[in-house]
Amino acid sequence: MTRRWTVGVDFGATNVKVGLVSPTGHVAAAQALESRDVGRPGRFVEAVSEAAERLARSVGERPATLRGVGVGVPGPVDVRREVVEFLVNVPGWRRVPLRRWLERRLRCRCAVDNDANLAALGEFAFGAGRGARGLVCLTLGTGVGGGLILDGSLVHGASGSAGEVGHMVIDPRGPRCGCGARGCLEAHVGTAALLRMGRQALREGAGPLRRLTREAGGRLTPAVLSRAARLGDARAQRIWAAFGHWLGIGVANLANLLNPDRVILGGGVAGAWSLFYPSLSGTVRAQALATAARSVRIVRARLGTRAGIVGAAVLIWGAKGGKPA
Amino acid sequence: MTRRWTVGVDFGATNVKVGLVSPTGHVAAAQALESRDVGRPGRFVEAVSEAAERLARSVGERPATLRGVGVGVPGPVDVRREVVEFLVNVPGWRRVPLRRWLERRLRCRCAVDNDANLAALGEFAFGAGRGARGLVCLTLGTGVGGGLILDGSLVHGASGSAGEVGHMVIDPRGPRCGCGARGCLEAHVGTAALLRMGRQALREGAGPLRRLTREAGGRLTPAVLSRAARLGDARAQRIWAAFGHWLGIGVANLANLLNPDRVILGGGVAGAWSLFYPSLSGTVRAQALATAARSVRIVRARLGTRAGIVGAAVLIWGAKGGKPA
Repeated sequence: MTRRWTVGVDFGATNVKVGLVSPTGHVAAAQALESRDVGRPGRFVEAVSEAAERLARSVGERPATLRGVGVGVPGPVDVRREVVEFLVNVPGWRRVPLRRWLERRLRCRCAVDNDANLAALGEFAFGAGRGARGLVCLTLGTGVGGGLILDGSLVHGASGSAGEVGHMVIDPRGPRCGCGARGCLEAHVGTAALLRMGRQALREGAGPLRRLTREAGGRLTPAVLSRAARLGDARAQRIWAAFGHWLGIGVANLANLLNPDRVILGGGVAGAWSLFYPSLSGTVRAQALATAARSVRIVRARLGTRAGIVGAAVLIWGAKGGKPA
Repeated sequence: MTRRWTVGVDFGATNVKVGLVSPTGHVAAAQALESRDVGRPGRFVEAVSEAAERLARSVGERPATLRGVGVGVPGPVDVRREVVEFLVNVPGWRRVPLRRWLERRLRCRCAVDNDANLAALGEFAFGAGRGARGLVCLTLGTGVGGGLILDGSLVHGASGSAGEVGHMVIDPRGPRCGCGARGCLEAHVGTAALLRMGRQALREGAGPLRRLTREAGGRLTPAVLSRAARLGDARAQRIWAAFGHWLGIGVANLANLLNPDRVILGGGVAGAWSLFYPSLSGTVRAQALATAARSVRIVRARLGTRAGIVGAAVLIWGAKGGKPA
């Protein structure tokens, strides 16, 4: 019997998404569990296994007849020892042999990797990274995550933390970052930085930004900032230009260092693409070496919130080339 | 007959060094040609070939009985097409198919790569990088070069320019770099930056630095700066601490991004190791993520000026694992 279906799991801050992935990278069905309810390791294994069983049953399979279950977690994974090192925002995870636990419970092939790595892998196999030889995939949101694929393989590093693009220092006199350092990329382009700039703009004057914020019940969000900019709010437009500039310094550094042919930008904030791209692209041209700038295409992610699930499935298939074995 | 000897060539700013390398990475004999005299591509091929012939003859061989001739050049190499793209500081080099020209002349296996890459490869196979899984090798001097080895393979990137660590922007309001951008690592820790800080210190006061500079005929050099610091010149010591701090930001960024288990520092300036290492190491601990900082050992290069020649030989043997085939 040919095994067709794979289950991909994406362990996010709010939800654990569990999806059934076809051999062509299509997510045929998906379920969302509340991260709050299933966050502890033992509970996580049980809840994910039950969801995988339900999804398998929906296409007339059982876990043992799946190609496998791949899982992305929000933290570094020691891929040699197959242990989740720790999860910054989820208590109870420290050196958890998650793959072994899942395999014992599900009796099928399981694999575990970092969520940003798997988003990169998903885009590489089925999204904006198809055909790339070297790519960096950035996920822009509260944090700035990153995954690196070189010569068709994920780069994991010595302790599974490679790709922490968000904590590249680009201005040592810049704002303090959640990690403790000063001037990290994340401290410039993470959601908190956007909102800090937005609140400053709100204090400075009237205009669409103030009106839209009021209409949103006084809640300033990146979406409000981008709507205001599209309606011509000059302060909001300057914020997106600044965002593009700082992101451009980060991308230029990546281009100089790794000389990728593709840089993929995903995550909620990437929706403001047209507002920050001109500034981003100008900064990359100005800051990166000519040969590196010429080689790289900067593109939007294509898989949206499915990237993690799809990448987790690709992990099961064996990533070299990203195609099913 | 087992082929024993390999010729490694290191095309530097002043000299072209040509060495005969044993299977254990020992440089048995070497010759230096003046880069000024042999810089043009046609002349380079001829002069290097003659030197290779002389070296081969000295051990009773001819080029055709060598394992091959490897060459490191100071610029990006398109490794797929095996073309030297351009050399920033040497006229006449633009898309030169150097490997093909050398093979036609020498009738043995030839290979060409970037010089910083080959220094990394040499250290990986026989120097400070032995046993590393992921390493970054920085060459500190007038420029700041870099080579990346991940999972035993050199990272070349899309157009052969990966590893340009010197042009990572670490302070957008910092000093102007030779590349046109502002605040590159090289603009903070290249020789020109050291000397700029040194001249400032000379203006500010007397002490060992001023005396040593006078004794050197008024010529301030990195060596004078490090002698002054060792003799207790507080201004010179502060310069090396600043050097270590900026270098530490660069190394922390590399650690976060690539999570290597080894970072190797070479080049003339690395001789001041004890003067900048405490500051470097403190900055890395403060700026890098804990898991990345814990994984990385920062060490001095071991092969000195031989790294390029040895790496060029390793290139011939096939680099995976760095050992002779």
